[in-house]
Amino acid sequence: MADGHQGITPQREDFSAWYNELVAKAGLVDRGPVRGTMVIRPYGFRIWELLQADLDQRIKATGHQNAYFPLLIPEGHLRREAEHIEGFAPELAVVTHAGGKDLDEPLVIRPTSETIVGEMMAKWISSHRDLPMLLNQWSNVVRWELRPRMFLRTTEFLWQEGHTAHADADDAMAETMLALGLYQDVAVQTAAMASIAGEKTESERFAGAQRTFTIEAMMRDGRALQAGTSHFMGANFATAFGIQYTANDGELKFCNTTSWGMSSRMIGGLIMTHGDDRGLILPSALAPYQVVIVPIGRGDQVQDVLAAAAGLASQLDAAGIRAHVDDRSQLSPGFKFNDWELRGAPMRLELGPRDLAAGTAVLARRLGDGKESIQLSTAPQRLTEELAAFQDLLLARATEFRDSHTVTVDTWPDFVTAVAQGWARALHCGQRSCEDDIKAETTATPRCIPLDGKPESGLCVRCGLPSAYGKRLIFGRAY
Amino acid sequence: MADGHQGITPQREDFSAWYNELVAKAGLVDRGPVRGTMVIRPYGFRIWELLQADLDQRIKATGHQNAYFPLLIPEGHLRREAEHIEGFAPELAVVTHAGGKDLDEPLVIRPTSETIVGEMMAKWISSHRDLPMLLNQWSNVVRWELRPRMFLRTTEFLWQEGHTAHADADDAMAETMLALGLYQDVAVQTAAMASIAGEKTESERFAGAQRTFTIEAMMRDGRALQAGTSHFMGANFATAFGIQYTANDGELKFCNTTSWGMSSRMIGGLIMTHGDDRGLILPSALAPYQVVIVPIGRGDQVQDVLAAAAGLASQLDAAGIRAHVDDRSQLSPGFKFNDWELRGAPMRLELGPRDLAAGTAVLARRLGDGKESIQLSTAPQRLTEELAAFQDLLLARATEFRDSHTVTVDTWPDFVTAVAQGWARALHCGQRSCEDDIKAETTATPRCIPLDGKPESGLCVRCGLPSAYGKRLIFGRAY
Repeated sequence: MADGHQGITPQREDFSAWYNELVAKAGLVDRGPVRGTMVIRPYGFRIWELLQADLDQRIKATGHQNAYFPLLIPEGHLRREAEHIEGFAPELAVVTHAGGKDLDEPLVIRPTSETIVGEMMAKWISSHRDLPMLLNQWSNVVRWELRPRMFLRTTEFLWQEGHTAHADADDAMAETMLALGLYQDVAVQTAAMASIAGEKTESERFAGAQRTFTIEAMMRDGRALQAGTSHFMGANFATAFGIQYTANDGELKFCNTTSWGMSSRMIGGLIMTHGDDRGLILPSALAPYQVVIVPIGRGDQVQDVLAAAAGLASQLDAAGIRAHVDDRSQLSPGFKFNDWELRGAPMRLELGPRDLAAGTAVLARRLGDGKESIQLSTAPQRLTEELAAFQDLLLARATEFRDSHTVTVDTWPDFVTAVAQGWARALHCGQRSCEDDIKAETTATPRCIPLDGKPESGLCVRCGLPSAYGKRLIFGRAY
Repeated sequence: MADGHQGITPQREDFSAWYNELVAKAGLVDRGPVRGTMVIRPYGFRIWELLQADLDQRIKATGHQNAYFPLLIPEGHLRREAEHIEGFAPELAVVTHAGGKDLDEPLVIRPTSETIVGEMMAKWISSHRDLPMLLNQWSNVVRWELRPRMFLRTTEFLWQEGHTAHADADDAMAETMLALGLYQDVAVQTAAMASIAGEKTESERFAGAQRTFTIEAMMRDGRALQAGTSHFMGANFATAFGIQYTANDGELKFCNTTSWGMSSRMIGGLIMTHGDDRGLILPSALAPYQVVIVPIGRGDQVQDVLAAAAGLASQLDAAGIRAHVDDRSQLSPGFKFNDWELRGAPMRLELGPRDLAAGTAVLARRLGDGKESIQLSTAPQRLTEELAAFQDLLLARATEFRDSHTVTVDTWPDFVTAVAQGWARALHCGQRSCEDDIKAETTATPRCIPLDGKPESGLCVRCGLPSAYGKRLIFGRAY
């Protein structure tokens, strides 16, 4: 067992302290001067850029186009959808003064953009030929946060929000599921998170949605993180904003709309899915530097080794590998090894005069077996394979962790034990009061009704009434 | 002479009306509900994405890293640099209420980020080894705008802002000029704008800067558009925020800093540099669709032509060309020709049954000679060459326009004539009161002291005092 490595509290001692110390010490993030805000430092922002590029490509490949809607929304716009304003009112930041004057109507900083997108869609859509309208925007949003936590809950965060309008409910539901599938693909394939996809129960629906779907991932303390959500609005927002079209037969109809979002909170999810007591562990697909080369040597040897390291980095770059030479002259190799372990680089190559003479380098992986000598001549191909294997290893490890911490339970004592260390698969009656009761007793909530759950009926694990969903729910404590 | 083409006011009749009508009609932008805000629609946003990708790559290639700083800044931060708050106070949007409560200290929405970056740099920098610190962020900023104009002056706009800290003034000045060079490269090479680089006179310096540099481009009404600026701050912000480092010799010193920005206003610049009475003209490098294929045919022929058009688009895509098939079945080819002329696609290919049989397509360029038949078998190579030639043509046309509308003048009457239709190159005394006098008489202002101007002395074109800058200034009316 690691114990206080890198000057960071071990996970088992205090997972929360481990996280807070690590995000700062690894140079991902810093606190902004305004409560709950964060500064994303270059190393953290590069992870976001890589995630963003991956998701953006998937969004565009499925026919969506990016656009940009204003940050400031008249407060009255939010009031047009009753549940929406009720849900967001407590979190709003309000501009009351601008350009040297008090404003006639207060403006809110967008907490999400359904209302302003709704107003514009009402203007842009008139015929069935304008449908579906498939938009996405990358933006910052503000939701006042009383218990901030870097990446997970911050007053301002970065995200993408998809907004689409459709001719009917079937088409909008298909879109809702398509977006959920994109998120599941990003989480599993790119972030190596063993997330599961499912529907939220009524209590956790988005304010104004008819149905909300989610992907939920398990963190290494057994808690769940909601990593992306997709909402089917029905005609709620279309009615509130007048998003109508003339159908083929000349009839005027309301659209059905969707919205869906994934945010910078994913970076927190990555950290808590893969990290260990030695620091971050970044999947190959999202590591700013996939391979860090540490040159070793003194005196006269330094220049030769540095030149060889730079040459190797160029070869790796040419093979599509993000390589970095740590050429900080004032730091020892040992310090650098610790530093890149802390910062989660998947692979480290040590290159010294003896290695050079032998045409080799020493490879150390961030997880798994110890050091190994590899041939420089085949390094690009070898590292391409190693990085793919590392990505697979992280997903397998996350899946194994999730599965070994998920228990199918039919009794209340088993439920309590299960959610204390992970997730419970249990039947539930569907009553809000029973959900509240479970939460009060265990702090666990229904995370989702899994899409792939088998049909099953029986009695509620808590109250004994008949189960309501035709399958088991996932319960867990959540971030 | 074109006359009311596309239902848009001709440029010569009312350039401003031409612009306002075109940005809306071409689907680039729409008005947001809050005064002065804009919605950037997909076609406009794609231009921004292409520009952004180009500039981002140049910024990273010169050693800068992206980061993200918070939107909300305590009002007190802006007050720490006296000139800075004086310059920005009238334009601030202020949050006074958040999370259901009145705030103790008002927060401003960033109008620019020197102050918050300064606070963080003071925390991150301690040794000469931390320098230079080369950061950039892509973000939205808010400056309350009384005379809004889509893309050119909007209450919220998108931009990048570079922020760097250096050990001494020489290094910071070199960075200031490097950033200016990046902007000049983007403007000339990518946007095909014939901008010129120079220094601002004191009256147009950034609030808090010691020196401000600019690139200025000429619009087709003869006015100047400031298309990017780079500021040398000296130690002004470093002193206000305590950005200090321990030098090699152990001495504690203040850094010198820079900042530099290019924004979504560039889209307005593109439009006014290249557009004509028929609509937008987009340079190849920034056109969302470089080649639009219009299938022609009726009845049984439709499917064959559509399939061939899709096949051709794939071939062009594979050659790195952004191709688009306009397959809207309800619209006539003639309507589509006008539409893509309006929307500025560089090349149009018409593809009908007879063309297909002959293995050809009809090429029409957005500028230049009439239609021409080209071979389908060599279309990817041919269009690659055509697009490069089109890019060159636009730059040559913009350069010719600028040069033919720039006059070297030594008398006041010649000056007045020159700035009524373009730019004047003139000597100036350097007095603020004389600049004000020129502006009152002509609305022209000194746009810049060109970097490449030849040494020259003599008397001020307005007041007759000796010239102050050792070379001629560019004067013009500005956006």
